[in-house]
Amino acid sequence: MELSNSLIVDFYELTMASVYYKDQIANSDSTFSLFVRSLPPNRNYLVAAGLQDILVWLEEFRFSEQDLHALKQLGTFDDQFLHWLSELTFTGNVRAVREGTLVFAGEPILEIQAPLAQAQLIETFLLNQITLQTVLATKVSRLRHAAKDKILMDFALRRTQGIDAGMKLTKISKMMGLNGTSNVMAGINYNFDLSGTMAHSFVQSYKSEKDAFEAYVRAFGKDAILLVDTFDPLTGIDQAIKTAKYFAQNGTFIRGIRIDSGDLVALSNYARQQFDKAGLNSLSIYVSGGLDEFSIDNLVRVQKAPIDGFGVGYSMGVSQDAPVIDTVYKLVSLDGKPVGKTSPKKAVAPGEKQVWRSRDWSGDIITLSKENLSYKSHYPLLEEVMTKGTRNKLAYISLDDINSYFERQWETVPLDIKEFTKSFQYSITNSDSIEKLIKNNFPK
Amino acid sequence: MELSNSLIVDFYELTMASVYYKDQIANSDSTFSLFVRSLPPNRNYLVAAGLQDILVWLEEFRFSEQDLHALKQLGTFDDQFLHWLSELTFTGNVRAVREGTLVFAGEPILEIQAPLAQAQLIETFLLNQITLQTVLATKVSRLRHAAKDKILMDFALRRTQGIDAGMKLTKISKMMGLNGTSNVMAGINYNFDLSGTMAHSFVQSYKSEKDAFEAYVRAFGKDAILLVDTFDPLTGIDQAIKTAKYFAQNGTFIRGIRIDSGDLVALSNYARQQFDKAGLNSLSIYVSGGLDEFSIDNLVRVQKAPIDGFGVGYSMGVSQDAPVIDTVYKLVSLDGKPVGKTSPKKAVAPGEKQVWRSRDWSGDIITLSKENLSYKSHYPLLEEVMTKGTRNKLAYISLDDINSYFERQWETVPLDIKEFTKSFQYSITNSDSIEKLIKNNFPK
Repeated sequence: MELSNSLIVDFYELTMASVYYKDQIANSDSTFSLFVRSLPPNRNYLVAAGLQDILVWLEEFRFSEQDLHALKQLGTFDDQFLHWLSELTFTGNVRAVREGTLVFAGEPILEIQAPLAQAQLIETFLLNQITLQTVLATKVSRLRHAAKDKILMDFALRRTQGIDAGMKLTKISKMMGLNGTSNVMAGINYNFDLSGTMAHSFVQSYKSEKDAFEAYVRAFGKDAILLVDTFDPLTGIDQAIKTAKYFAQNGTFIRGIRIDSGDLVALSNYARQQFDKAGLNSLSIYVSGGLDEFSIDNLVRVQKAPIDGFGVGYSMGVSQDAPVIDTVYKLVSLDGKPVGKTSPKKAVAPGEKQVWRSRDWSGDIITLSKENLSYKSHYPLLEEVMTKGTRNKLAYISLDDINSYFERQWETVPLDIKEFTKSFQYSITNSDSIEKLIKNNFPK
Repeated sequence: MELSNSLIVDFYELTMASVYYKDQIANSDSTFSLFVRSLPPNRNYLVAAGLQDILVWLEEFRFSEQDLHALKQLGTFDDQFLHWLSELTFTGNVRAVREGTLVFAGEPILEIQAPLAQAQLIETFLLNQITLQTVLATKVSRLRHAAKDKILMDFALRRTQGIDAGMKLTKISKMMGLNGTSNVMAGINYNFDLSGTMAHSFVQSYKSEKDAFEAYVRAFGKDAILLVDTFDPLTGIDQAIKTAKYFAQNGTFIRGIRIDSGDLVALSNYARQQFDKAGLNSLSIYVSGGLDEFSIDNLVRVQKAPIDGFGVGYSMGVSQDAPVIDTVYKLVSLDGKPVGKTSPKKAVAPGEKQVWRSRDWSGDIITLSKENLSYKSHYPLLEEVMTKGTRNKLAYISLDDINSYFERQWETVPLDIKEFTKSFQYSITNSDSIEKLIKNNFPK
């Protein structure tokens, strides 16, 4: 059955909404805050992402005839409620930090101000997408940092957790300043450079490595990157040099080689020496094969291996060392009054909030949204991007613009925060007004 | 742009295919073998999954007008090749292990026998889906094992890596014998029981916990499960008992409570005692909140906590301790001749293969596909499910049938293999014919 994307929802959102409807509180003013409770392993920061996809989904939010038919078949909901659902659209406001902004535990990534039942029904999709995209953007930022000014390419589609994740990863790769992707569909949709070399099966499909290399260069000339480790990487490098020299005679200089296994430091040094000796100075060396930010950092910064570019797959594709974050979506205001939650270890501070970022990264301050922090040292992160269900101009921003924004911000971020291990506790302080509300909400 | 799913492909598959086309080897007979190189952390086995989705995709494989238009715009491919692509369908054979079958490192999960360019073009999608679904099915099997005969529910949609992963997880949850899901769209599409309780925000949306509980029971009666830890879990349990007793007077016995935080052993024991004391013996206790196979095993087997059901989210949803596996798709035969690959640590044994499972789990034997192992102690795992691009009847199997098959198999699996940590090395032996090919292919 072809259901609409508005049915990407947990069952309890619908059962709760039906009770709100019955009890005539479905339209109560509410605010929900979406944030991460704690930072996952190896992370001193997260990069917020996913906002644009959410705003599009919210604008299109409505249940189709088929959705309603399917819901009716469940036998859980009465006709009155289903009729009410049939007319529902999202009419709320969204305040959010810009995509590409560094965020820390406890800081709202976005807040939804909407009629209670609406705000409830959108929870699952919002959590799913903000979680996925923030996890991936954070991971990609680490790889980008490790690779410094080298070429870095997204080769992960084959091992992302499904197709949606693969497409979002490529979008995020562009957003975070990677140099290309192997993902054809996402490359086309997001106007991002496609790149790729060849598979071992290609080399095996010809009588010899020599034949395979020559066939590829005949077809792609200066774009050819030859994969040298199908058999023995040293022999492969030597063969690549012969092929490159052969075509160089006719003025075609190939792009380079890719090494996918073995000792990447030794092999890249060997290849660089041989290239230069052969007068093939323009040839580049690309490497791949289970690379992550730790191994890339080692190759680039510690070993100073003469590698020009990296293709990264599964470790980036699933954010292997931290594949999930504990995002939550919590009611913080109802009928204009701040509300909180006091469960052990899972408390939520009451009130609509604003995050004030310190310009010198000395520490952020969380205030109520209506408070005006007049310090020049801090600026507010959450801005209204959707008003009464319609995106405003702040919501329209290109991936290139997000990338520029991210990079301007990144230049100011202290090295401590950029570390690849958990080494730094960024300071987050609640304003006095929030502390007072916590005290009143959670009386001893 | 609306591109077809056939463009879920890595760029190099297309560039390689174009060279095969140019060199007139696009239609060479080839066989590719898809397998996992090594088992990830904590895993003694994997559960193969994803086959049905792949077969449907292969049957629908063709490039649309829009795909071809977008490819032309890239400027990489000539018109002849694009015309050839426009007429391409998948005409190959697929041999695969049944979904739900335990597999080990090095054992083919499926083999594709097809014209070379076709087999190459389908690589990315096959790897993506087999990887995702095998990772998830393996994780779900561990949770199912840990929860024994208790109720186990998929609550993961909000934190799976995207929507595709969320939908596939629910399908797999049904396949592996879970008892329900929170995922409305997948529940409807896969005809799987929907379940859910309430969120903390629901409790906060009423004047008191008492009012919230009563509102929910008024709406859902015997299906109501009350979430008791919005404020203090002990007070919440006491209030749930009062509410349950109040409605029991009129003959409505609610289903139970959910505890989402705190000391689950102490709280579940307290709740069980109070329920039984109050004559509410039929009430069930559900728990949730960051549970994985290790914590569930502790609650069920070690602590013997009186818990009736578990709702599991992110640890299952992303297979947190092992979010990826190193699946590969390798050319093993070309023009009827076995081919292999000798790169360091990434060698591939030549030849089309069959896996022979030992009935007593003493160890599997991998042979060439044409070999007939006449031992009664072993049976072949790979069977032809698609012939010349069309699924045959073995490919049509319901999720319930996969579940029955999995459970019959699971009963015979030794406890060593089922352990939650890497404690066992299952024996896999190559047949003499394969060993001979390896020797010939990789001469010393």
